[in-house]
Amino acid sequence: MSDHPLLYEGKAKKIYATPDPDILLAEFKDDATAFNAQKRGSIQNKGVMNCAIASHLFQYLAAQGIPNHFIAQVAPQQMQVRRVEIIPLEVVVRNRAAGSLCRQTGLPLGLELTPPLVEFYLKDDALGDPLLTRDRLRLLNLVTPAEEDTLIEMALGVNHHLQGFFQDCGITLVDFKLEFGRRDGTILLADEISPDSCRLWNQEEADPQKRILDKDRFRQDLGAIEEAYALVMQRVLAHSQP
Amino acid sequence: MSDHPLLYEGKAKKIYATPDPDILLAEFKDDATAFNAQKRGSIQNKGVMNCAIASHLFQYLAAQGIPNHFIAQVAPQQMQVRRVEIIPLEVVVRNRAAGSLCRQTGLPLGLELTPPLVEFYLKDDALGDPLLTRDRLRLLNLVTPAEEDTLIEMALGVNHHLQGFFQDCGITLVDFKLEFGRRDGTILLADEISPDSCRLWNQEEADPQKRILDKDRFRQDLGAIEEAYALVMQRVLAHSQP
Repeated sequence: MSDHPLLYEGKAKKIYATPDPDILLAEFKDDATAFNAQKRGSIQNKGVMNCAIASHLFQYLAAQGIPNHFIAQVAPQQMQVRRVEIIPLEVVVRNRAAGSLCRQTGLPLGLELTPPLVEFYLKDDALGDPLLTRDRLRLLNLVTPAEEDTLIEMALGVNHHLQGFFQDCGITLVDFKLEFGRRDGTILLADEISPDSCRLWNQEEADPQKRILDKDRFRQDLGAIEEAYALVMQRVLAHSQP
Repeated sequence: MSDHPLLYEGKAKKIYATPDPDILLAEFKDDATAFNAQKRGSIQNKGVMNCAIASHLFQYLAAQGIPNHFIAQVAPQQMQVRRVEIIPLEVVVRNRAAGSLCRQTGLPLGLELTPPLVEFYLKDDALGDPLLTRDRLRLLNLVTPAEEDTLIEMALGVNHHLQGFFQDCGITLVDFKLEFGRRDGTILLADEISPDSCRLWNQEEADPQKRILDKDRFRQDLGAIEEAYALVMQRVLAHSQP
């Protein structure tokens, strides 16, 4: 899809080099995976929709003072981003209990978490992206204590701004996963923000299955996946930039 | 095995009532289970050996100022204990990396952990005894913040005393699991301390399989399980009470 050399192919994106060593091209794929890639499929137009959603949200967050890797959307499925050294952690912010938190603790789906929970997972497919206690995070020595504090602060900042943003869209931001990277001694928000990486519930639907607007529709075989992503895209793009 | 009414049968012990409502009888079984009871078997004389080991260690710890539920060993497989309200947590102390810590993080087996790691797991077979971050522990509301501090302090105290004790026996205390209970507003160490609940390495053996003196011999089908437990019992019982 691109003339540039492919540097990396992940589960949902391809990363290409560009003539500028500081700039990469992220191409969003339609491929969908879940449960550590044990479940595989495809969601039509997902690449285009997620690229549009992520581009809008990264620009919004930059305007709110959250530094991130986004430079520009250069094609329907392609985003130029700053090259960062990805930190192999998934930082998850939870406003309500869902997913693995419910499965692992028995907490009821939808329980409001105040203050929000910030959790770290090791980004390692072979190990199954395990949950890390703060002690385990420190033992793995993947970030300095100062970087750990920065990640928590940035994740809570993203949550603050995205919660308001999605609230304006009539959507509840249940939880989401972020990835970060280092560049010139600072930390930038990286990867993507999309219905692949967020749990989003439509506030206009009371039904616990119908309200789901994110990859849980794929994980749980709920159908109407493209329609859900399209609804998110439509509402996100209709939200004015600040 | 007992004339008393059976109150509870666990994987490794039966708990009987006694005429005194404050006193229970714990009977140690030969049954062995691993991997959340997916693997089942029996270790000859385990009940007798673990009862002797646990009785000795509980007396030793009481003398060191660690309050626990032990009253007296009343038969080769039976221990009288104070009735406590068991807190449904497993408190694990790790001096070296082993077991699930290695599997989940990729840390190398035997890595020294300084300071020791204190980890909480939810005691819930149906959920697979999941690891709890401190945030998840607080969300589950199973202990007060003051009790959480007490559990950590007691677990580290037990570790301090047991590390020295096993060092005297030529055994490395790799890690162990504790359970605690409430009684009259205080917290007592409960359950058992044995090669079922500890990882113990014989310092006289360099071979990474031969040195194992605990239930990992059963988990990993290493054979000579009874011999390993017997060696632990012999050295523990030869260690004078303070």
